[in-house]
Amino acid sequence: MINSTHIASAFDRDLEAIQAMIMKMGGMVEEAIENATEALTEGDTELAASTRLADKEIDALEEKVNEEAARVIALRQPIATDLRTVLTIFRIAAALERVGDYAKNIAKRTEIIYDLSPIEGATLSLKRMSRAVQIMLKDVLDAYIQRDADLALDVRARDAEVDQMYNALFREFLTHMMEDPRNITACMHLHFMAKNIERMGDLVTGISEQVIYLVTGEMPDEDRKKADYTSTARGGVVS
Amino acid sequence: MINSTHIASAFDRDLEAIQAMIMKMGGMVEEAIENATEALTEGDTELAASTRLADKEIDALEEKVNEEAARVIALRQPIATDLRTVLTIFRIAAALERVGDYAKNIAKRTEIIYDLSPIEGATLSLKRMSRAVQIMLKDVLDAYIQRDADLALDVRARDAEVDQMYNALFREFLTHMMEDPRNITACMHLHFMAKNIERMGDLVTGISEQVIYLVTGEMPDEDRKKADYTSTARGGVVS
Repeated sequence: MINSTHIASAFDRDLEAIQAMIMKMGGMVEEAIENATEALTEGDTELAASTRLADKEIDALEEKVNEEAARVIALRQPIATDLRTVLTIFRIAAALERVGDYAKNIAKRTEIIYDLSPIEGATLSLKRMSRAVQIMLKDVLDAYIQRDADLALDVRARDAEVDQMYNALFREFLTHMMEDPRNITACMHLHFMAKNIERMGDLVTGISEQVIYLVTGEMPDEDRKKADYTSTARGGVVS
Repeated sequence: MINSTHIASAFDRDLEAIQAMIMKMGGMVEEAIENATEALTEGDTELAASTRLADKEIDALEEKVNEEAARVIALRQPIATDLRTVLTIFRIAAALERVGDYAKNIAKRTEIIYDLSPIEGATLSLKRMSRAVQIMLKDVLDAYIQRDADLALDVRARDAEVDQMYNALFREFLTHMMEDPRNITACMHLHFMAKNIERMGDLVTGISEQVIYLVTGEMPDEDRKKADYTSTARGGVVS
């Protein structure tokens, strides 16, 4: 290695500082998911509004993470594995920012539908789904900080459950819409929320793959079965 | 400046090579939008399938762009404006990759709905919308390569038209669904396609903002009116 111990440890210190920012960002995103979901299930439009506003802080933190990571690249000139470790930071920060965006979108839609006729059971199903994603996010952040590839693989496997919950909801919403046209507008919004949560799961899965890559040097195989069939099948209604 | 002319020009040569890759990637994404749209309007499931497969090449090119950009950072140690220019590359490549993903998703859904009862006029409206986004993409790539902030501003302004087309389609689909429940499944898919195109427009707008930032050193104001009201209003149907 060209790097002296002195330079390597300066790099490690910088890296730790950025990782701390990633963890903070992750915590804010977890909270955004929790608040968006609570606002939805409780019909709490004030909480929805504050969740929407809090997303600006997440975006600002992503900017800061990117700037710091760029500064470290310029200053420490990492190569090989070290460079990949820094580049992973850009990806994880970008994924977290997008999860935050989806939480914001759920909050926005909550503000719209709160006084539409409620769809029986729908918000509770959404809550269960969003809770699953929130735990996946918490675990993948632990996996990242502890460089725990097994935990990351476990998180990745759990995305299939989220996809299944989404499939079930997709069918449920179609049924409600067909039964009573007055449900259509609310169901369209609820369905978008379900899709948002499903995409959050995909993004968390992407983070888990970055963690696996960081630890093992290889991306995991594409053997994870993609269980969102609604864009490749007809949601079990027509077929 | 610390950089000697020699080093600066080596950096410029590297940058040009990566920009050529971005342009190639952009061309592939333009083609993906065109093919996905043609597959939809012509009911051409073979073209849909090949569009879906072609997305892998776009993803691979993004990887290559990222690796090259990282290599340039490590090798040339750009600072200040030069560093920002390279970081912009990561963002533009990521945005293009996501536009490609949306085109792939449209192709996937085309394969599902091709034999469902057609919704009058819907595919033509989608074609008009996707054509608008495709031209925006072509123009923003020109703006990028020519560092033309005015053209980038123009592209950004045009996104409002795409948002308006989406709003009109959203209302149209709701109406079709309410009129006849047999339209619901097809409309759900067509609506997702419309939303995908609307998001492509947002991503192209994001690229235009990166170009403006590159040229002027400042991000444009948030005065661009967000004209997708469907997540903040009820699509004109309930309200």
